Amino acid sequence: MKTVHAYAAESSRSPLKAIEYTLPDIGPEQVDIRVEYCGICHSDLSMIRNEWGLASYPIVPGHEVVGRVEEVGSMVKNLKPGDRVGLGWFSGSCMTCPQCIGGDHNLCAKGEGTIVGRHGGFADRVRTHWIWATPLPDALSAQSAGPLFCGGITVFNPILEFGVRPTDRVGVIGIGGLGHLAVQFLNKWGCEVTAFSSNPAKTPELTNLGAHRVVNSRDTEAMKAEAGRHDFILSTVNVPLEWSSYVNALAPRGRLHLVGAVLEPLPVQAFPLMIGQRSISGSPLGSPATTAKMLEFCARHEIAPLVEEFPMAEVNAALDRLENDSPRYRIVLKAD
Amino acid sequence: MKTVHAYAAESSRSPLKAIEYTLPDIGPEQVDIRVEYCGICHSDLSMIRNEWGLASYPIVPGHEVVGRVEEVGSMVKNLKPGDRVGLGWFSGSCMTCPQCIGGDHNLCAKGEGTIVGRHGGFADRVRTHWIWATPLPDALSAQSAGPLFCGGITVFNPILEFGVRPTDRVGVIGIGGLGHLAVQFLNKWGCEVTAFSSNPAKTPELTNLGAHRVVNSRDTEAMKAEAGRHDFILSTVNVPLEWSSYVNALAPRGRLHLVGAVLEPLPVQAFPLMIGQRSISGSPLGSPATTAKMLEFCARHEIAPLVEEFPMAEVNAALDRLENDSPRYRIVLKAD
Repeated sequence: MKTVHAYAAESSRSPLKAIEYTLPDIGPEQVDIRVEYCGICHSDLSMIRNEWGLASYPIVPGHEVVGRVEEVGSMVKNLKPGDRVGLGWFSGSCMTCPQCIGGDHNLCAKGEGTIVGRHGGFADRVRTHWIWATPLPDALSAQSAGPLFCGGITVFNPILEFGVRPTDRVGVIGIGGLGHLAVQFLNKWGCEVTAFSSNPAKTPELTNLGAHRVVNSRDTEAMKAEAGRHDFILSTVNVPLEWSSYVNALAPRGRLHLVGAVLEPLPVQAFPLMIGQRSISGSPLGSPATTAKMLEFCARHEIAPLVEEFPMAEVNAALDRLENDSPRYRIVLKAD
Repeated sequence: MKTVHAYAAESSRSPLKAIEYTLPDIGPEQVDIRVEYCGICHSDLSMIRNEWGLASYPIVPGHEVVGRVEEVGSMVKNLKPGDRVGLGWFSGSCMTCPQCIGGDHNLCAKGEGTIVGRHGGFADRVRTHWIWATPLPDALSAQSAGPLFCGGITVFNPILEFGVRPTDRVGVIGIGGLGHLAVQFLNKWGCEVTAFSSNPAKTPELTNLGAHRVVNSRDTEAMKAEAGRHDFILSTVNVPLEWSSYVNALAPRGRLHLVGAVLEPLPVQAFPLMIGQRSISGSPLGSPATTAKMLEFCARHEIAPLVEEFPMAEVNAALDRLENDSPRYRIVLKAD
């Protein structure tokens, strides 16, 4: 039995407040992490607000955790107390379905979300199945690595899974927490990187992140001029766009890939897909194996989230900044 | 100068009638084919009716040609008079764009359609660029091979291009001219093949073609029971369906692929794509290289279109049967 000190919302509109809860004895396949930092993701806000109907209150958000292993269950073979690890959206998978056995634990139908029906990382401790506690390479900083475990892996996963090649011309829609990592990954991947942004004032920042080109997504003529250019366009936004202009911007064999949870259906025309052998797709976070590859890639290429740090006790100010401002580019909370 | 005897429609609603037209001297990269058989595709009807706004009258339909090379231009290296060849939807590509140089002549933006702004195969002769005159293996019958060059390659292409594997569970929506070939291909590919049909009375025929399972697409409960099963679902229909039920039927990493030219936009939900890492895509006909591979595959596995034969002079009766009945499964015209 352990006491956890956490920050929780008691309803969809209440501010977070300090709570304590008790963890039962650790299970044989579980790992307890002593939280050092935890990033804030838009999904934390969506869960607090219950936008997806998945919240149970009190809810302790937080699913971009970096910390050290505190205790491991009797069957855990690959981790020991003191190891640096990260934890993201998932904290459990069934381990026996075809997806889990095949390495796609992220596609397990019984996957457990870190903040869905259980308590997350805005806390001093968080528990997970060992498969989702991924060792953090020494080269990566505890302060900035947290956002890799949700925002980062969400955009890294399709780059690897859908075979983006260094010779490809790629576009990224929406340069926020996810997009600023996608631009860095794709630049180091060797691609020509175009940032689609509704805010051209960001151009110098986007160039610094690794964008070779910036296109104002509100400029109809500029969008038309992109016709047929891109092998892969990654959308990180969660609002409806003029999707046909992005399908039109795809080269033959091109793919428009969604990682932003837009709720309104996309009206997809069959002809533009057929004529150009194009695809539209989506994906969740990556598997544990892909997460490990991402971390190694980040270490080799010195890729890191750009973060603004808040003390965890100031979580409400941090959430307010995320909801109402444009943090550059991800907020992390330092555990008390 | 050659005189061609052909069948043409003079308006979107007129029956076809015999016409003559003159071909200029053959160009250096061109091939003239003496037509033996020509299949009838729904696209011929769509073009006659000008449903896509591409028709110019008089229009000579026909783009599933089998015949023998009659004459070749001075630069043609791989064909000689007397060779058996087939010709499909395309009869020209620019040969110099990145797609053509890369072998994707079917994705050339300047591709020429055999019946778009020029005359097709309901005739005694038809002309093409050599790249689209594909040699016919000896094992394939001239009478039945024509439909492979449009209906066949349209469904074979995505099976090859999108990496369908023999261990996959696949579905085919709509078992007509295209679907009855898709079922044969996928059976010989080694897959578990499910036919989605609105007409369960077809079950014995579908089983004979190679379907291991038949699902009544109008049975809501049966459709629900398919949830998460299929790695690849190929839609050959050109009418709106309850698309979400097919997305729901996809396994993780699954793909819903469209080769039927449905005009109404598909309302695509992002969440089901994201959660299962699923794709929706489309494709046109295959490349010349893929067409050759398809023919070799057909020869090895004794795959052939099931055809009903009409004399070309009875083309109007044949078109009427296609438009108003359900031919089993493709109509071919025997040249006069």
